[in-house]
Amino acid sequence: MTQNNDSSKEVSSGVVNSDSLAAASTTNASTTAALNTMKHDVKFNRDIMPAQTAQALVLERVMCGSTERVPLEQAYGRHLAEEAVTNRPVPHFRRSIMDGYAVIAKDTSTADASNPVILQVIGEVPCGAVWSGELRQGQAIRIMTGAQLPEGADAVVRLEWTTTVERAVNSGPQSGQMIAVHQAVRSGEAIHGIGSEMQAGEVLVQKGQRIGAGEMGLLAMFGYANVHVYRRPQVAILSTGQELLSIEEELTPGKIYNSNSYILLAQLESAGAMPHLLPHIPDDITTLRERLDEALERYDLVITTGGVSVGDHDLLYDYTNNWAGELLFNKVKMRPGSPTTVGFRHGKPLFALSGNPAACYVGFELFVRPTLLRMQGVAEPLPKPILARLTEAYRVRDTFDRYVRAVLTITAEGQAEVRPTKADISSATVSIRDANCLFLSPASEEGMEAGTLVHVFPLREL
Amino acid sequence: MTQNNDSSKEVSSGVVNSDSLAAASTTNASTTAALNTMKHDVKFNRDIMPAQTAQALVLERVMCGSTERVPLEQAYGRHLAEEAVTNRPVPHFRRSIMDGYAVIAKDTSTADASNPVILQVIGEVPCGAVWSGELRQGQAIRIMTGAQLPEGADAVVRLEWTTTVERAVNSGPQSGQMIAVHQAVRSGEAIHGIGSEMQAGEVLVQKGQRIGAGEMGLLAMFGYANVHVYRRPQVAILSTGQELLSIEEELTPGKIYNSNSYILLAQLESAGAMPHLLPHIPDDITTLRERLDEALERYDLVITTGGVSVGDHDLLYDYTNNWAGELLFNKVKMRPGSPTTVGFRHGKPLFALSGNPAACYVGFELFVRPTLLRMQGVAEPLPKPILARLTEAYRVRDTFDRYVRAVLTITAEGQAEVRPTKADISSATVSIRDANCLFLSPASEEGMEAGTLVHVFPLREL
Repeated sequence: MTQNNDSSKEVSSGVVNSDSLAAASTTNASTTAALNTMKHDVKFNRDIMPAQTAQALVLERVMCGSTERVPLEQAYGRHLAEEAVTNRPVPHFRRSIMDGYAVIAKDTSTADASNPVILQVIGEVPCGAVWSGELRQGQAIRIMTGAQLPEGADAVVRLEWTTTVERAVNSGPQSGQMIAVHQAVRSGEAIHGIGSEMQAGEVLVQKGQRIGAGEMGLLAMFGYANVHVYRRPQVAILSTGQELLSIEEELTPGKIYNSNSYILLAQLESAGAMPHLLPHIPDDITTLRERLDEALERYDLVITTGGVSVGDHDLLYDYTNNWAGELLFNKVKMRPGSPTTVGFRHGKPLFALSGNPAACYVGFELFVRPTLLRMQGVAEPLPKPILARLTEAYRVRDTFDRYVRAVLTITAEGQAEVRPTKADISSATVSIRDANCLFLSPASEEGMEAGTLVHVFPLREL
Repeated sequence: MTQNNDSSKEVSSGVVNSDSLAAASTTNASTTAALNTMKHDVKFNRDIMPAQTAQALVLERVMCGSTERVPLEQAYGRHLAEEAVTNRPVPHFRRSIMDGYAVIAKDTSTADASNPVILQVIGEVPCGAVWSGELRQGQAIRIMTGAQLPEGADAVVRLEWTTTVERAVNSGPQSGQMIAVHQAVRSGEAIHGIGSEMQAGEVLVQKGQRIGAGEMGLLAMFGYANVHVYRRPQVAILSTGQELLSIEEELTPGKIYNSNSYILLAQLESAGAMPHLLPHIPDDITTLRERLDEALERYDLVITTGGVSVGDHDLLYDYTNNWAGELLFNKVKMRPGSPTTVGFRHGKPLFALSGNPAACYVGFELFVRPTLLRMQGVAEPLPKPILARLTEAYRVRDTFDRYVRAVLTITAEGQAEVRPTKADISSATVSIRDANCLFLSPASEEGMEAGTLVHVFPLREL
């Protein structure tokens, strides 16, 4: 009974009549999205809470989850549960940055194209090798890019600035090949000194940081063969709604397939969680209570969809009004998803999202994703808005803030622009497919002109 | 010997001297990045190819990979190998979008607040249920959001526009409860008609499209319990370079840990591939030949790092000059990564990337990622540039195009801005960690002023 609950209030563009249900329930509410005002919803006995207040209320209760040790090879996409620090300078030896000859710079001071300096080549240092002796005046050692500079040498002459000299006389076993150096080099030429790239004690990866390509490379550079990461939160997905069929079943009249659970599954994967699709719950408070109690024992976090709106079968409302948990809120001053409900039971969060796919999706982005990121050690898990200009007027009058599914693009002039997806003419789920961001349309009597700078939240499910 | 090969040519900002090695090898080359010019590199006997030409040359040889059938539950992040189409309209029945009463609109035509219309309630349709009879004049049926409209009804009066009427007289078993309707509704009010959201035959997900949250939801909506997806490409990573240690080993003088393989591992995961870290190859052409031949038999794609530059141990150069395969190019007019080498053997691509971490990273993004996406059915796998303004002058004179690791941000005015990461003062791998894009600095005598609009390629490894 809730699969399409506030979809009618969700038209994304064009002139729309004020939503009379919403208006009726918030007649005393200011139209500005004041952060700390909470209005009492007389008709349905729910406190209305601005979305940002609600987000803060959730996050202040979320703790970092437990950790585990994994091989670096398996750490991609995980969040580091320790601070990784450089345990030595980089490079940790004087490193040649050219193929050429290690020399004493002073020996080359008079060299130029017409008057080359002749040096005796006493050997070769490949990469990974260490020259055991010491370079003396008049000598050079062939050296490869990345190899350790021999003792005594203080510069590298690149190969292109040298030529090989035919030895006129074989002057005994001590003498090697001779080279002519055609350009003077300064001390330090073509060398990376110890610590020139990084000093010991620098932070490589912060605690809570997601391990991407750069982080993987840095951890490998310093020999972190195993790393401490946060465990992936185990999340149960439970759907309610008598009209829902599982996708294995045959479609029958009046029924629809459960798509919300699959949208959530994708969002959970992208947030680093391990989703568990549990069997659908029938519209029966006893079964729901049993199943939810069990899920809240067993998983780190539980999401339900449906059963939150004001109707005859608002099961989640009944459940959270009579449970061994704390209800944080069950009405948020936003659309879609105003009946979004969040509570905690023995420290485990329960997110009761709307049955409407768009509201379910937005509820996840605003509340569940930040919670999952915090559980994985992220210090600032709330999505950060960027600013972009509306390509068209957005004339939706609403006493609630609206999070509008939209497309963010950059123009040929480098200007960030945003336009709503066409949710008014197609399925809400199509607009989830087509959106790459949400923009915030604050509660307003007039809507917004084309060109208005709006707050845009890029979607992180990609 | 190659771990840091063109790193010295990779300074990312500030005034830099023309690179004399590059200049020497391209004296005949135009400084404009003409798409179809290929210059002969006399000194090292390699053809120099513009990066875009090289990309096109690779992609025209790449075929879509094989496919497999997976449950939708496991399809997140995979690429669909079939076109998914709506097999029925949405909704497939007339659906109420409100909690209220199904009515015949004409019955309400005179209703207003002072003169309500009284209707007889003959029953209730919960979600998922179908009313078996037909609604007649003067009757109403209680209906839930999302439920199927009974035959005969053509509108829904929302609950808030009705009140319950106390029955004065019990007029027998046929009469149900009475309601007063306080507002007239038009035919179609609060109903989603059949096909009003989607028509049968619309494309839900295109062939080759990555399955994200919206795609998952749409596939579920239409009962795609199992989907055809492209197999994840199996990719071998082989590193060369005598200086490299595996991260399990103890660090010894002159050696460094192999970090490139881990950077590649992250990039491969993010591109949907299955990485296989194979044992390091010593600087020995016979072993390398054996190992590479075997890897090219066994895996869908092979990546090597190191051994591509012009030095004493350019193993990959030797390998690809004497193999049962086709060498596409071994010198690209770009930095970092000019010695990037690509060939095909029995249809399997070999990417011989530079040993320098930055060059290896960029080589992957420009050549390997598009190849992997094409193997997974993506029609246009090349990264699409957006335009952003340089926040600072970029004064690097170079006869080669440069792909500069950088940070893209949006200002408070909605302007896209880009600044190079500080690769000149820290490790290349730090700049991979810090970058969220590459920008293209075309071959130039002067570099670019602050405020110049540049082509930016957002990094898709996130």
